[in-house]
Amino acid sequence: MSKGRLEAFSDGVIAIIITIMVLEMKVPHGDRLEELVPLIPTFLSYVLSFVYVGIYWNNHHHLLHTCKVVTGIMLWANLHLLFWLSLFPFATGWMGENHFAAAPTALYGAVLMMAAIAYALLEHTIIRAQGQDSILKQSVGRDWKAKVSVLLYLLAVIAALRWSWIADAAFVTAALLWLIPDRRIEKRLGQLNET
Amino acid sequence: MSKGRLEAFSDGVIAIIITIMVLEMKVPHGDRLEELVPLIPTFLSYVLSFVYVGIYWNNHHHLLHTCKVVTGIMLWANLHLLFWLSLFPFATGWMGENHFAAAPTALYGAVLMMAAIAYALLEHTIIRAQGQDSILKQSVGRDWKAKVSVLLYLLAVIAALRWSWIADAAFVTAALLWLIPDRRIEKRLGQLNET
Amino acid sequence: MSKGRLEAFSDGVIAIIITIMVLEMKVPHGDRLEELVPLIPTFLSYVLSFVYVGIYWNNHHHLLHTCKVVTGIMLWANLHLLFWLSLFPFATGWMGENHFAAAPTALYGAVLMMAAIAYALLEHTIIRAQGQDSILKQSVGRDWKAKVSVLLYLLAVIAALRWSWIADAAFVTAALLWLIPDRRIEKRLGQLNET
Amino acid sequence: MSKGRLEAFSDGVIAIIITIMVLEMKVPHGDRLEELVPLIPTFLSYVLSFVYVGIYWNNHHHLLHTCKVVTGIMLWANLHLLFWLSLFPFATGWMGENHFAAAPTALYGAVLMMAAIAYALLEHTIIRAQGQDSILKQSVGRDWKAKVSVLLYLLAVIAALRWSWIADAAFVTAALLWLIPDRRIEKRLGQLNET
Repeated sequence: MSKGRLEAFSDGVIAIIITIMVLEMKVPHGDRLEELVPLIPTFLSYVLSFVYVGIYWNNHHHLLHTCKVVTGIMLWANLHLLFWLSLFPFATGWMGENHFAAAPTALYGAVLMMAAIAYALLEHTIIRAQGQDSILKQSVGRDWKAKVSVLLYLLAVIAALRWSWIADAAFVTAALLWLIPDRRIEKRLGQLNET
Repeated sequence: MSKGRLEAFSDGVIAIIITIMVLEMKVPHGDRLEELVPLIPTFLSYVLSFVYVGIYWNNHHHLLHTCKVVTGIMLWANLHLLFWLSLFPFATGWMGENHFAAAPTALYGAVLMMAAIAYALLEHTIIRAQGQDSILKQSVGRDWKAKVSVLLYLLAVIAALRWSWIADAAFVTAALLWLIPDRRIEKRLGQLNET
Repeated sequence: MSKGRLEAFSDGVIAIIITIMVLEMKVPHGDRLEELVPLIPTFLSYVLSFVYVGIYWNNHHHLLHTCKVVTGIMLWANLHLLFWLSLFPFATGWMGENHFAAAPTALYGAVLMMAAIAYALLEHTIIRAQGQDSILKQSVGRDWKAKVSVLLYLLAVIAALRWSWIADAAFVTAALLWLIPDRRIEKRLGQLNET
Repeated sequence: MSKGRLEAFSDGVIAIIITIMVLEMKVPHGDRLEELVPLIPTFLSYVLSFVYVGIYWNNHHHLLHTCKVVTGIMLWANLHLLFWLSLFPFATGWMGENHFAAAPTALYGAVLMMAAIAYALLEHTIIRAQGQDSILKQSVGRDWKAKVSVLLYLLAVIAALRWSWIADAAFVTAALLWLIPDRRIEKRLGQLNET
């Protein structure tokens, strides 16, 4: 199995996911600016999901970058990740349409959590295939970010049914964790991990 | 005709098919968790079809891997396969929305069967083009899996109108056939085939 | 401008066009086989358009195969072709939903005709860029097929409003022209062209 | 980060955007030619957006052409551009459906303006990464086109609420600016820029 085709297929699926999410933002029938107001939550949930899919695409590239051979298990671990990502448009649409209500927010958190777990599984599969001197293992260390993210999503799922703003804060925090000054933090924490 | 562009185009079509299937899972209007209950059959049919499309993508890659030159007939055999795969979203949506009722289940089986036949035709076309020492021929043998799958789908189509659970069992069995411990079984059966 | 990216982009657009056409075949609400009957014309129009898009994809590859440098004008000639191809889902859906009625059939013919003209323009642009010894020019000759097709579509547009079966026959004839035993006919006609 | 995958992903997203815009042109229910009349504004807005997305795809290629290494910031600047482009189908659909009414036209202008700003940011990011002798910097100069476009879109947003034809004229002017005789104008202006 060549890496090129796995990347091309994943890129295709991720490109479609990121683009069809916008279809949940239905064109309003009236022609006044006020018609856009009820769409604001849908728009915000779209922005959030766009950033998340962007993060996944970015990280996915790094994962595969260190990878030379693609095994059958990797392929299915990758499809498993794409499966949960493919539920983003549904979860995003439901959350946006219902103005971040309890149940849709919890579902959104659950989908994010499953995607994060699928990502960790894919990472684990690649590391195992690379063996002892895995370059990926060396560069991600214990991958505290991935673990903290899963915990944040779990927190979000539980909190959503009661205080949905906690869930929203967890979503934004986890996204920022992946977006903000990567190198320095990661380097330092990488050193901590190694000691 | 370069193989690269055939692969890229097929990847594109398969990536879109796998992703637009999720659009059949319409966002519910209410905001309570219970709203998701009627979507469960749609979700299950989506999971099944996602796995099937994943299997086809995987196998499609193996088919083309051994292939160096792409002839005009191969190209149309490939488009023929993509045609039947493109009906998956329709068949999946109809089956899911109607909770695995008789006729939609039969149609789903028929589409799976046609895709399996189209796949066998593509395989045959490539083997013929490769001639006597076809590497593909050597690695798939008589391809009992492909044949058993077609029979299972045929069984499903017939059974669906009476006992749709038999059809569902056939779908899952055929999927597992392609998913589970490939190497050992295939090697042994490959040896049987050669004797 | 590298040819690779032009091909990749065109493949992407064509892959999406061929796949979203199937979305015009709406999942019926009931669960009986009879529900599929009113979809038959939509299905037939889908099959026809699938074959046409397949032909365009195939020919598009041959066009670019001989091409080394991509100029700015080629790029826009290519986007012009993609524009008319992007109207296929709309024209197909309208024709299918209205059971091949007069006006939708005429529109379908008009879109086919515009796509054929756009294709001829792209071919012309590439030939001009290649200059005197254009390989493309040598292999397509005067491209009688392209010219006959445009005439067939024109005939279809005119006939559609009166006898829509003539239009349908013209669509099928033009498709067969591109599908059936290419080499021998083309070789012979190529010789005729050269004399 | 390899440039290839960034290009492939961007191509995928842009190919999907350009194609799903056509889905806003809903198939009419009747079968007479007159049914197409109310779709004319939607069609015109589709043509305009198709040209714009084509221009962006074209320019995007030129931007990345000079680029060898892809940094993390470039990647996010690129996703930021894709984000605004992904709103084209929504803005196009709203403007078309409401026959170029004031508010939808203003929104369309705002989305175009944000995309133009995102494009300028991406250009700036690449130039900064390339350092002093940036080839991109040398070829775009002060990029007067990009600046004039942003001003035209800003004008369109303001004018739209009063005289929406001014906005429409601004959209067409900015598109022509990018389409028409590039080389000579650019060369001359390039010389002016350098003096």
